[in-house]
Amino acid sequence: MPQLGLLPRRAWATLLSQLLRPPRAVCIREAGCHGQVAEAVLTAQLKSDQEKPNFIVKIPKGTRDHSPQQIVVREKILDMVVSCFKRHGAKGLDTPAFELKEMLTEKCGENFGLIYDLKDQGGELLSLRYDLTVPFARYLAMNKLKKMKRYQVGKVWRRESPTIAQGRYREFCQCDFDIAGQFDPMIPDAECLKIICEILSGLQLGDFLIKMSWKDVRHEMVAKKGLAPEVADQIGDYVKCHGGISLVEQMFQDPRLSQNKQALEGLTDLKLLFEYLTLFGISEKISFDLSLARGLDYYTGVIYEAVLLQTAAKAGEESLNVGSVAAGGRYDELVAMFDPKGHKVPCVGLSIGVERIFYIMEQKMKASGEKVRTTETQVFVATPQKNFLQERLKLIAELWDSGIKAEMLYKNNPKLLTQLHYCENMGIPLVVIIGEQEQKEGVIKLRSVPSREEVAIKRENLVAEIQKRLSES
Amino acid sequence: MPQLGLLPRRAWATLLSQLLRPPRAVCIREAGCHGQVAEAVLTAQLKSDQEKPNFIVKIPKGTRDHSPQQIVVREKILDMVVSCFKRHGAKGLDTPAFELKEMLTEKCGENFGLIYDLKDQGGELLSLRYDLTVPFARYLAMNKLKKMKRYQVGKVWRRESPTIAQGRYREFCQCDFDIAGQFDPMIPDAECLKIICEILSGLQLGDFLIKMSWKDVRHEMVAKKGLAPEVADQIGDYVKCHGGISLVEQMFQDPRLSQNKQALEGLTDLKLLFEYLTLFGISEKISFDLSLARGLDYYTGVIYEAVLLQTAAKAGEESLNVGSVAAGGRYDELVAMFDPKGHKVPCVGLSIGVERIFYIMEQKMKASGEKVRTTETQVFVATPQKNFLQERLKLIAELWDSGIKAEMLYKNNPKLLTQLHYCENMGIPLVVIIGEQEQKEGVIKLRSVPSREEVAIKRENLVAEIQKRLSES
Repeated sequence: MPQLGLLPRRAWATLLSQLLRPPRAVCIREAGCHGQVAEAVLTAQLKSDQEKPNFIVKIPKGTRDHSPQQIVVREKILDMVVSCFKRHGAKGLDTPAFELKEMLTEKCGENFGLIYDLKDQGGELLSLRYDLTVPFARYLAMNKLKKMKRYQVGKVWRRESPTIAQGRYREFCQCDFDIAGQFDPMIPDAECLKIICEILSGLQLGDFLIKMSWKDVRHEMVAKKGLAPEVADQIGDYVKCHGGISLVEQMFQDPRLSQNKQALEGLTDLKLLFEYLTLFGISEKISFDLSLARGLDYYTGVIYEAVLLQTAAKAGEESLNVGSVAAGGRYDELVAMFDPKGHKVPCVGLSIGVERIFYIMEQKMKASGEKVRTTETQVFVATPQKNFLQERLKLIAELWDSGIKAEMLYKNNPKLLTQLHYCENMGIPLVVIIGEQEQKEGVIKLRSVPSREEVAIKRENLVAEIQKRLSES
Repeated sequence: MPQLGLLPRRAWATLLSQLLRPPRAVCIREAGCHGQVAEAVLTAQLKSDQEKPNFIVKIPKGTRDHSPQQIVVREKILDMVVSCFKRHGAKGLDTPAFELKEMLTEKCGENFGLIYDLKDQGGELLSLRYDLTVPFARYLAMNKLKKMKRYQVGKVWRRESPTIAQGRYREFCQCDFDIAGQFDPMIPDAECLKIICEILSGLQLGDFLIKMSWKDVRHEMVAKKGLAPEVADQIGDYVKCHGGISLVEQMFQDPRLSQNKQALEGLTDLKLLFEYLTLFGISEKISFDLSLARGLDYYTGVIYEAVLLQTAAKAGEESLNVGSVAAGGRYDELVAMFDPKGHKVPCVGLSIGVERIFYIMEQKMKASGEKVRTTETQVFVATPQKNFLQERLKLIAELWDSGIKAEMLYKNNPKLLTQLHYCENMGIPLVVIIGEQEQKEGVIKLRSVPSREEVAIKRENLVAEIQKRLSES
């Protein structure tokens, strides 16, 4: 076990005690209170010196670390998702990881059991957010905002029960896009569906389908009209098998509907939506399916869920997680639940299930066998001789100060081969080499790792030359 | 209050009930279990229809939302910080927001009281992380990693007591950079100090100073040698007033030290560090100050804290938060506390206190009065006539599909003036205008918002022209 960490301490104590001529009086006056601090520090110190862990080192059930390799994949995906949200004019928003418990509990109906509560340590009762939609509604009501187009990326937490937790995570990332405000019907709804299509196409996850339903229709039929749900499902199937627009046309021709004012209004909305989806060129991606029901209770009107068609089969151990990679819908009454006067702010939005997408992308990359770089280092500072640490430090500081991504080994006298191997393993494209010869001639050797070509460059031109090479590559 | 959300529901119920011919038998068989679902949905539905909040809408004490304006500032800062970490070859890492309680409690000594525990809902006892260092050490030990240079950006949570909570947040963001591994002395330590300087200079926060101390020296003197701490502080002052390197030189000339082996070892380390800091060109930013003590117990050896000199005075209501914007140090024994065999992995790192920096940057921007764009929209799709929604939708989809950031109003027939005002308010540089005239001639009008110049462009050349203009600007 390296003792290096301990030496300076002993050394320093001696070092400074030598310098010491304590004025007595002060000692006595102050010693007491400081003594306690000293004790605390000492205890902690001794503990950390001797302690062996009396527990198994692990992380909470349903959570995971993300390694550097995974971070690279995740950032690639998140950048893609967020840039799509920004392409559609969304503003960013961030809310706390936890909210007052009462802000969350009333809103999620069936999902009560899934909420992580914080321990009552005196003060407020808090819970971790289980989605980004309820906090968004709370934000709108709290700030009396009547319209907002926002995106939010963040972690959410759900206490998935062990049985269904398999293949799911209790901490997971959500990417949400929502349009709040009173607008002409179906235009924002159509844009949300367009966004899902853009993201899933852009990520090249294979063929996908968006199943669309109408929460209130299902609810009205099941709860209010007291009809058996499988009948609703029958309609769902009936509707589904007729696909999108053709169905609407057919309904219009059905006198039972066309003669009913409210039925006509409903029909008009559905027709509008499909019309807009056609103009967006995505109508064939949408399938109307009344059997679809979403977990959270706050939805009203249209709801949708995107499933992957090809990869669904390959899901393997995540079989329980198959398919659904994006979902959302309209929730016109959620904001009103936070507003003292119950003022409504109609909302429609979507959430990208990035964890599932991460999993698929990771599998793809593993399959393709391509090596992922976990650093972005552009230049490595090396030396073939001993006693060139000072030169390397001066050189690398110059590179850093010029904005160049540079690394070196934290050794006084590393072997050249070790340094070059490091570059090849890490995929660093350029090496600058400084040795006696170069120093004499006032040059630096610049080596291309892939081609192994080396050229001597005047010390003062080095940064410019590196920047030139990097801009070219 | 807009009733629009309700109409389609009623309409749809009618619409679909018309299509219904329920097969009796099935009804009876299934009705029961579905009845409950129906009930649940109905309850939730009625609630959301009628409920007025019986509570004040607010967020937890010590937390805050970040508005779109704030997000813009935060992202600017975080990008700067992370790009510096990457410039120094760090890999990304992410760990869960909460850990097993026992993983955190033993490590933070004095800070016990600051930990947020999760409620025991059956299963593991969990706590929210209070920093990113302990989870990093846990990650290294769990994965048996002997070396790693990683950065992590994430939220941490501390139950600051009300008295000191003023001006502080209980949820705040940390940006950490750490170097784990057994290396030649003081090289990684020097790089950490270099990184702090690069970031604080890069953010142009005004003049700053890094106060450096040696935790174990202070501890040894106070606890082990039983010397009164104010004496240690005297040395601190003594040391401080002599500044950096000059002090070391002076110590070397002091026979009481130069004749003591361990003292010489300690001196050599300090001299080395200052030597490296000089090569990095930052030695004058560092002041040795033994009076500095850091809150967390896991530090060993060198510790440091960066304070802003100019803005400290202006701190205003955040007076308790004055100064410290970055801190860190060496913690050679933390990883061993997670390792079954107690194997050591020496570590040194730093943490950027971004909340404080956000505050300063926000004040600067307010003072400068510059208007911050909260969206990145490049093109707005407008029309001067009625009944051009379809054309606008087709057009905007074409722009989105070409990767152009585009917006339009979600109205069937918006006024042209309203549309142009929106562009000016939101700082959108380009407007495409489609009307009858343009449609006849097969062109689109492209308008520059700043100059108000308009040119007609062939419909088929529009995207190319827009991309050309955007690449030029």
